Amino acid sequence: MSNQHPSPHAQAERIRHDLEVINSFNATPGQGITRLTFSPEHRNAVSYVLHELEKTGARVSFTRGGSLRGRLVGEAEDGPAVITGSHLDTVVHGGGYDGPAGVVAALELGRVIAERQIPHRLPIDLVAFAEEEGARFGRGVLGSSIWTGRISMDQISQIEDKEGLSYLEAMEHAGITIDDNQVLTPDKLRAMLEIHIEQGAVLEREGIGLGLVEAIVGIKHYEVTIGGLANHAGTTRMGFRHDAIQGAARIIAAAEEIASNHSHTSVATVGRISAEPNQINVIPGRAKFSLDIRDTSAASLDSMVTRIRNAIDEICSERGLRFDIKQLIDIPPVPMSSELINIMEQKAAYKNMRTLKMHSGAGHDACNFADMTQTGMIFVPSRDGRSHCPEEFTKAENIALAADLLLETVIELTA
Amino acid sequence: MSNQHPSPHAQAERIRHDLEVINSFNATPGQGITRLTFSPEHRNAVSYVLHELEKTGARVSFTRGGSLRGRLVGEAEDGPAVITGSHLDTVVHGGGYDGPAGVVAALELGRVIAERQIPHRLPIDLVAFAEEEGARFGRGVLGSSIWTGRISMDQISQIEDKEGLSYLEAMEHAGITIDDNQVLTPDKLRAMLEIHIEQGAVLEREGIGLGLVEAIVGIKHYEVTIGGLANHAGTTRMGFRHDAIQGAARIIAAAEEIASNHSHTSVATVGRISAEPNQINVIPGRAKFSLDIRDTSAASLDSMVTRIRNAIDEICSERGLRFDIKQLIDIPPVPMSSELINIMEQKAAYKNMRTLKMHSGAGHDACNFADMTQTGMIFVPSRDGRSHCPEEFTKAENIALAADLLLETVIELTA
Repeated sequence: MSNQHPSPHAQAERIRHDLEVINSFNATPGQGITRLTFSPEHRNAVSYVLHELEKTGARVSFTRGGSLRGRLVGEAEDGPAVITGSHLDTVVHGGGYDGPAGVVAALELGRVIAERQIPHRLPIDLVAFAEEEGARFGRGVLGSSIWTGRISMDQISQIEDKEGLSYLEAMEHAGITIDDNQVLTPDKLRAMLEIHIEQGAVLEREGIGLGLVEAIVGIKHYEVTIGGLANHAGTTRMGFRHDAIQGAARIIAAAEEIASNHSHTSVATVGRISAEPNQINVIPGRAKFSLDIRDTSAASLDSMVTRIRNAIDEICSERGLRFDIKQLIDIPPVPMSSELINIMEQKAAYKNMRTLKMHSGAGHDACNFADMTQTGMIFVPSRDGRSHCPEEFTKAENIALAADLLLETVIELTA
Repeated sequence: MSNQHPSPHAQAERIRHDLEVINSFNATPGQGITRLTFSPEHRNAVSYVLHELEKTGARVSFTRGGSLRGRLVGEAEDGPAVITGSHLDTVVHGGGYDGPAGVVAALELGRVIAERQIPHRLPIDLVAFAEEEGARFGRGVLGSSIWTGRISMDQISQIEDKEGLSYLEAMEHAGITIDDNQVLTPDKLRAMLEIHIEQGAVLEREGIGLGLVEAIVGIKHYEVTIGGLANHAGTTRMGFRHDAIQGAARIIAAAEEIASNHSHTSVATVGRISAEPNQINVIPGRAKFSLDIRDTSAASLDSMVTRIRNAIDEICSERGLRFDIKQLIDIPPVPMSSELINIMEQKAAYKNMRTLKMHSGAGHDACNFADMTQTGMIFVPSRDGRSHCPEEFTKAENIALAADLLLETVIELTA
């Protein structure tokens, strides 16, 4: 029992057990957690949560797009709901906390409300969103995007995994039948709250257990292609080369330097790279690499992109190279509700919990709700800031702490 | 008719026709020339040259390893031979001159000797070596390595193409039967001379038609692996990254800078690169790239490698990265015979041909002969220095000029 919260409700032991069961459903034992949406492992994890939700008395259903919802019906049976939850799918060789932390916190919230018979006027929806990572169907926050009507049925029918199996077929194969195919609309919502692991090292370094997210970064993805002249690695003297990978190397370095000095929240990453013809003894005539650029304000994001574009232009002119920049995605920054942050700060102070206001460097299902209802996120510390890898770890005690703050906040919102 | 050689013997028109016929045997029409060793295209090219050699009265046979030899028997029937020739196989989507230029020059030499009934005491072997590029069986100068006994029959039996077909099976499928399975030994050799396209732009820029090769560069190939920490591209702040591709980018730039300032013959190339996990939104935890390092002297090559290793060490320490350097090949530089160069310079001066002493940045079949007999190479200009690509081009007139110098030299060597 921590001194920080003298009247704890959420139990770390139950949360730890939930995570153990969920992460026993894993396609890559010994090599991190792999639980792709609608795979047998994912279906088993969803089933476990479904049965645990049923034990709390929640009315369980699958919503449009295949997300799992357990509704704690309030006194006002049909009022707008507070939604809380996260996802159960993972990246390939990922960890066991990105997603499940928020699902088990929601589940534990349901248990505490049921056990203590805590009254609430408005319904509380405990949710496990489908396909948040995009690791199977190539598009992040897909389940919540379908549910909130951001993707038409026509578009959905075109979404396939790498084997050509469509999203809807895969859902059917997983034995998931939609109980409620309605698009979620703002009038059905009182608020949305998501607990998630930080995936960075800020909370750990500050020694603070709870992060209150002020904004989720905007993300721009680009594919940059550098065109040079493929030639013989032995017979082409250094001064007469138009080496695409040498140009790419200078640009990659420039992107790091620019992002490091742009704003205190800006980041730039080159995650993918390839050369053509990719032969050891041929000067690359072409290089392709990805650029992932993020920041919390649209203006800062745009000016960072301009600086990187200028660097590409300059480096390519100097070296007699061509370039092409193709934008792949453009997600604007999403501010979280300051009213919700105020409520959470009050509750935390009352409970003697330390919190830190911060930003999220990653997109989350919460993004799909921010323009529909008051939306907030609570971060819990990631050990060594690691995520999307087997080393990902968050203490169950921290998830319980976040669940307690969630409980206090949800009770106020649904009163 | 050029003023440079008042009594030309080799005919550009015939050379042009030979090249046209040979390059009509091509697995990738419209996308450069692809003629893999023992493929139907290669077999057709070999057959064409074989029949043309027979017309000159040459005794035609297939030697150990499947190279084609046409022997112009000399007055001293069994004396040591002057070998001249090159190869007919190409890289994938390569050009029509790298290899064929030296084969058709040898063929034209045979025609001129036959037509003019030029007497020679020693035999002259006109050769098309098998598998010089290594594009099918993964190992360069393989045909001449087998013929000169550098590879045992045990080793040969383990060499396979990507489909798992062995070298000897592929040769059999091509209908090639070895007439003479003897290993070529120094006592059978008077000299070896190879005409080849330059594959660089030096002769073209200098406006000189013939290059006399003083040395063939040594080549060291490495695979460099950089180990960092894979992490989330959005949530990991710039200052807390151990990004393997950022380290690789600095090393690639350093390799270029070092090679550019090391010696006037030094080159370094990064032709292959990959990142892991190679996802747009994950900081690479691992980067792999190749290093191809060449120079004409062993000492200069070694000191360049030391400088690049030091740069890798320094960059990785600064960035908290690990590294591993695996050597893949280590081919020492091969000096050509200065006696042969002297003879060729004399002959060229007498014929009023301009020559330039230079080095070869690529390995050639000639390398396999340099420790066995007097060995030399004549380079002909490559348009724009391009090679191993569809744009590869060399004028038939320049090949004829080289064939004339070859003729004068061979006559002296076989007198």
